[in-house]
Amino acid sequence: MPKYLLKYPCLCLMALFMVMNKVQADNGYKLWLEYHKVSNRQLAGVYRQQLQYMVFPASSNPLKAAKAEFLMGLDGMLSVKPTEVTNIVSGQTIVVGTPKSLNALPISFPDSIGNEGYLIKTIFINKKQCTLITANTDVGVLYGVFNFLKLIQTNQTISKLSVADHPRLMYRVLDHWDNLNRTVERGYAGSSIWNWHKLPDIVDQRYIDYARANASVGINGAVVNNVNADALVLSPQYLLKVQALANVFRTYGIRIYLSIKFSSPVELGGLKTADPLEPEVKKWWAGKADEIYNYIPDFGGFLVKANSEGQPGPQSYGRTHADGANMLADALAPHHGIVMWRAFVYDNKVPDDRFKQAYNEFKPFDGKFKDNVIVQVKNGPIDFQPREPFHPLFGAMPNTPLMMEFQLTQEYLGFSTHLVYEAPLFAECLQADSYRYGKGSTVSRVIKGDFNKKLITGMAGVANIGADLNWCGHPFAQANWYAFGRMAWNPDQSPAEIAADWLGMTFTNDESFVSPVKKIMLQSRENTVNYMTPLGLHHIMGVSTHYGPGPWVDNAGRPDWNATYYHRADSAGIGFDRTAAGSNALSQYAPEVKADWGNMKSCPDEYLLWFHHLSWGYKMRSGRTLWDELVWRYYTGAESVKQMGLTWNKLQGKIDPERFAEVKQLMQLQFKEAVTWRDACVLYFQSFSRMPIAAGSPKPEHLLDYYKKLKFYYVPGIGGNNYMTN
Amino acid sequence: MPKYLLKYPCLCLMALFMVMNKVQADNGYKLWLEYHKVSNRQLAGVYRQQLQYMVFPASSNPLKAAKAEFLMGLDGMLSVKPTEVTNIVSGQTIVVGTPKSLNALPISFPDSIGNEGYLIKTIFINKKQCTLITANTDVGVLYGVFNFLKLIQTNQTISKLSVADHPRLMYRVLDHWDNLNRTVERGYAGSSIWNWHKLPDIVDQRYIDYARANASVGINGAVVNNVNADALVLSPQYLLKVQALANVFRTYGIRIYLSIKFSSPVELGGLKTADPLEPEVKKWWAGKADEIYNYIPDFGGFLVKANSEGQPGPQSYGRTHADGANMLADALAPHHGIVMWRAFVYDNKVPDDRFKQAYNEFKPFDGKFKDNVIVQVKNGPIDFQPREPFHPLFGAMPNTPLMMEFQLTQEYLGFSTHLVYEAPLFAECLQADSYRYGKGSTVSRVIKGDFNKKLITGMAGVANIGADLNWCGHPFAQANWYAFGRMAWNPDQSPAEIAADWLGMTFTNDESFVSPVKKIMLQSRENTVNYMTPLGLHHIMGVSTHYGPGPWVDNAGRPDWNATYYHRADSAGIGFDRTAAGSNALSQYAPEVKADWGNMKSCPDEYLLWFHHLSWGYKMRSGRTLWDELVWRYYTGAESVKQMGLTWNKLQGKIDPERFAEVKQLMQLQFKEAVTWRDACVLYFQSFSRMPIAAGSPKPEHLLDYYKKLKFYYVPGIGGNNYMTN
Repeated sequence: MPKYLLKYPCLCLMALFMVMNKVQADNGYKLWLEYHKVSNRQLAGVYRQQLQYMVFPASSNPLKAAKAEFLMGLDGMLSVKPTEVTNIVSGQTIVVGTPKSLNALPISFPDSIGNEGYLIKTIFINKKQCTLITANTDVGVLYGVFNFLKLIQTNQTISKLSVADHPRLMYRVLDHWDNLNRTVERGYAGSSIWNWHKLPDIVDQRYIDYARANASVGINGAVVNNVNADALVLSPQYLLKVQALANVFRTYGIRIYLSIKFSSPVELGGLKTADPLEPEVKKWWAGKADEIYNYIPDFGGFLVKANSEGQPGPQSYGRTHADGANMLADALAPHHGIVMWRAFVYDNKVPDDRFKQAYNEFKPFDGKFKDNVIVQVKNGPIDFQPREPFHPLFGAMPNTPLMMEFQLTQEYLGFSTHLVYEAPLFAECLQADSYRYGKGSTVSRVIKGDFNKKLITGMAGVANIGADLNWCGHPFAQANWYAFGRMAWNPDQSPAEIAADWLGMTFTNDESFVSPVKKIMLQSRENTVNYMTPLGLHHIMGVSTHYGPGPWVDNAGRPDWNATYYHRADSAGIGFDRTAAGSNALSQYAPEVKADWGNMKSCPDEYLLWFHHLSWGYKMRSGRTLWDELVWRYYTGAESVKQMGLTWNKLQGKIDPERFAEVKQLMQLQFKEAVTWRDACVLYFQSFSRMPIAAGSPKPEHLLDYYKKLKFYYVPGIGGNNYMTN
Repeated sequence: MPKYLLKYPCLCLMALFMVMNKVQADNGYKLWLEYHKVSNRQLAGVYRQQLQYMVFPASSNPLKAAKAEFLMGLDGMLSVKPTEVTNIVSGQTIVVGTPKSLNALPISFPDSIGNEGYLIKTIFINKKQCTLITANTDVGVLYGVFNFLKLIQTNQTISKLSVADHPRLMYRVLDHWDNLNRTVERGYAGSSIWNWHKLPDIVDQRYIDYARANASVGINGAVVNNVNADALVLSPQYLLKVQALANVFRTYGIRIYLSIKFSSPVELGGLKTADPLEPEVKKWWAGKADEIYNYIPDFGGFLVKANSEGQPGPQSYGRTHADGANMLADALAPHHGIVMWRAFVYDNKVPDDRFKQAYNEFKPFDGKFKDNVIVQVKNGPIDFQPREPFHPLFGAMPNTPLMMEFQLTQEYLGFSTHLVYEAPLFAECLQADSYRYGKGSTVSRVIKGDFNKKLITGMAGVANIGADLNWCGHPFAQANWYAFGRMAWNPDQSPAEIAADWLGMTFTNDESFVSPVKKIMLQSRENTVNYMTPLGLHHIMGVSTHYGPGPWVDNAGRPDWNATYYHRADSAGIGFDRTAAGSNALSQYAPEVKADWGNMKSCPDEYLLWFHHLSWGYKMRSGRTLWDELVWRYYTGAESVKQMGLTWNKLQGKIDPERFAEVKQLMQLQFKEAVTWRDACVLYFQSFSRMPIAAGSPKPEHLLDYYKKLKFYYVPGIGGNNYMTN
């Protein structure tokens, strides 16, 4: 240690105070890469013992990034800097690299490791024990380093390690709905992190930290602009800006993608048409692709929202989704780019049931898409509701790659104000059984390509990231970014384990904090379903803003934007009959699923009103009537938010005061809004049921009319200048 | 020191590494309140010696805030926490408080201290030596504490102190041009820091840090919404949000103000008119004022932009500015609120010379405004140009309080991309001699009320603050926020001293960094004048966006929005003749000023083309022709930016890598944009002068047409959704 420390022992005290001071203040910017000091001194000592030396030659950018991260992490957590050596010092050395960077290794890799997997292994090299982090590729090593650091972040042993892991999906992509004016559609964490005006000249440190965070969970792609795309993004002026971002991302194994406007050949290219079968249109796109790859050799490809919500598409020219997607696929194929073609479509003429639209439009094209097209399907058939049944397309297109689209930003889950941990929602969909290939053909296995190895695979998450200091608005919203990455890497991971890891890395490993807060996280999504849309209710939020309750909405732009279209409440009962007697949407599922959900007796309470119109007096499994059960769920949902807050308040002092106070305030606001949801919905549905709120439950504070008249101005997420009201 | 430090000496090393690690990473969020560790160990020892004990009773919020800041600062800089005592330990104790909080003090204050001044004094109390920080009020103590911390931040002695200071202006206010949708008009540092959607429930830590930063430089007011105001801000729903901010600000001695829309009685109140002489209108405003003060007992008052750029005002009803201002003043007077009435007006019918409009409209009303009205006048007659002569109203209204309005956000100074330290611009205006009360009646003395003690006084700065991590976009833009506070406190302070303080507090006290960078700062504004608008050119920027050069603009909404209106370049020469032979705007100044500037021989080069139309061949003081001088200035301006960048690059390693790298990139971009300004303007004016660019100067890279055709999309500062082009 430096001499002056002995000469000025007080310096130790100084330094330590400073550490404590620094550790206390935390605005959440560092996400789960806080690299907190390991508080267990004995454990820290053991770690340090094993990390005194390193063999870590780094010439490529990814290896340099891995090495920098490795040193930053160890410095932060253990305040050690391993001495660089060329020969292993037994028991005290860590060896990091590829067979190439390490000039051959005396070990063989399991084939499964592939291009992105890694090994972390305690082995003997020339009879000397060391910890080895290795992979076939530099990016694999980067992933290995992040996962090694995670072991220390979560205070696990690094002795006798034998970890081998690899991603189960090929394309693990964040979709940013960011506009070029820096507003973010359905974004609740401030403006876009992409400063297009200052790009390409100014490369914000934030871009690097964004890439680090993604790489730490294995996210390997980013679509940087809104699916409601601006043709301008394909202009040379903007491609230079995109290139600057791509140059940052590349180091971290992330490929950049763009959302494109299907009519770009007209708007940008000055052509008379964007008809995908027109030779001049094909030529324009091929030329544009060549141009893009000139700027960005590893460009990922296009994300396309076509013929949906007013966006142009092949149907505007009498062509099919396959025609449009394949034309773009041909333009990208020579450069190994892909087309992510969204299945979120509904016709401009209102269908009998919006639920059925995507299936009806895409099922006929199974097998008709080029190999580098992947159809991006939302987890559910409507639109990212608090709870949806899995999308009927999963399993229904055996010869078409389907990419899962989850929404991380909480458009329908309380914006960045409500604590909703989404991993249980993801898992519920991924583990649902489509029965399309017999029992056990889960959605997870479908998107992993278990039933058709030829297909490319992927998962997309609509980002919840903005320019807020803490990136996601709500400190706990960071967990959804983190969990998405973890589950895109391996869709079958447990939400509980992911939550525990995230809490340890983000806040503390103190069990007296982790254990109760993990419980809160795991219960949070069900709470929100209960106070917003229990028993299978869906799409009853405020119109346009999607903020707050709006079960009374019946005058939206089109019938299937109305809440009344979905809940169908009347004096007789409530719910959308999607059995054969109704819209028959259930026929889009495998017979086993149809039979299970189509029978009101076997249909789980959670999905009941998705598929059945039931009388208010209908007897539920609980023994309660449907009305009483509905009311009970709304009250339970709000009550559980209150309890969550009480639990949190007991944890003061266990984490930094800033984030503790922020979450405390947020939970109070969440409770306020949960009560509004509860009271507005119960009062509204009561106007049909004419039945009383069970005795003992507090009466709503206001009359229904009060909630209907609530106005909200400048609600975030609907464009910077909008002045929408509920 | 804690025992375990002796038992585990390695911990010292640990802690120290961590400090080094933390100190290295810096995103600029902490502004000039970094509280860096004092690197000079000997000096630190001396400081610590004198700060071992403290007498600091704190019961009120401002005193609690002062104490928390005091402890945070000492912990960060010295890692000491003075032991709280009730009796002074001689030579080692600091005593902080008011006579009241300290139960009487054996010293008397100079009267000048007033309600916001403070004393920092090394004195003997009962024969015991101590350092005393005291004031008449709690906020005065807070200011004293910040200034004591500044002594340590800038490594000055705290022995034998005798500091007495007080603000020279009463109202020291930041004007935020922030819209309720979180866009910021002419804002270049991201979106608004006010999260109106989450307010009042969520009180962001950022609001507290904002208030701390303001208090540290004595800013005591904030107008939180855009002068192009939205009537909605006066609705109960929004007043609750404003109240939440006011509750934060109050602790730090900051009063909150609102920009109001003059037509609010119609839009919000449902009245048929907003005529200020209508009894029902007076009644509405009086009632609204009562309502506001119900929420915010110390509400500051209203800022009003009336009958300007399409905003409604008293003239819309055939009334005068005085009618409008006085009506609002009457509503606020019972609550001790003030009206800040902006003089930035120009008629909807185009005046002969926009320069003269404010003077013509306001001069006649001298003495006609109520005592709680202050007229807010921009530093120059046009609009925050890189250089303007001082506004002719200063000194011309002996019986009317005039509040200086400076613009911190760099609408015309390169956005948040160009390093422009504005204190020299402020000083140039403040030290200008109006001669209205004889020689030496500077603008500074006018706004300080030296010539009419009855008047209230103030200074406003249009904020350059946004949600960017570093608050102001450019790390050096923070210096303009800081300098504004310092000069609002005392308009006669030296820009050089302020720059040195800011550099020491923000980056380091290392002279090898401070000295060259201070030079850069002090020269920066002149550089920008040279590459944008040398020799008195003004208003030749891109239309609407105000981004980049646009000397050719001749098709704007109205003649006096055109660049050609201002530079009047033709084959004969260039410049706006404002002598008696021209618009005679000079007649609005005192005879001495008129004589000096009106004579092209005595008129300083800096103002020449503001007042004279001169031939291209006109011989300048330098001996060059006007054309050659103009070209020389443009080239000198761009060259000096290049030199600035070379100087900066030599400073690598002296500060944190993040901010070093960011500024390095910014300087490269500034140079690029400076060259664009230079080449576009030189080529454009050459099309009139038909004279050559002096030999040796590099030729412009492109032809004039190239620069005219440049298009910029989604330029920041013109509203979130705008898609303006140059």
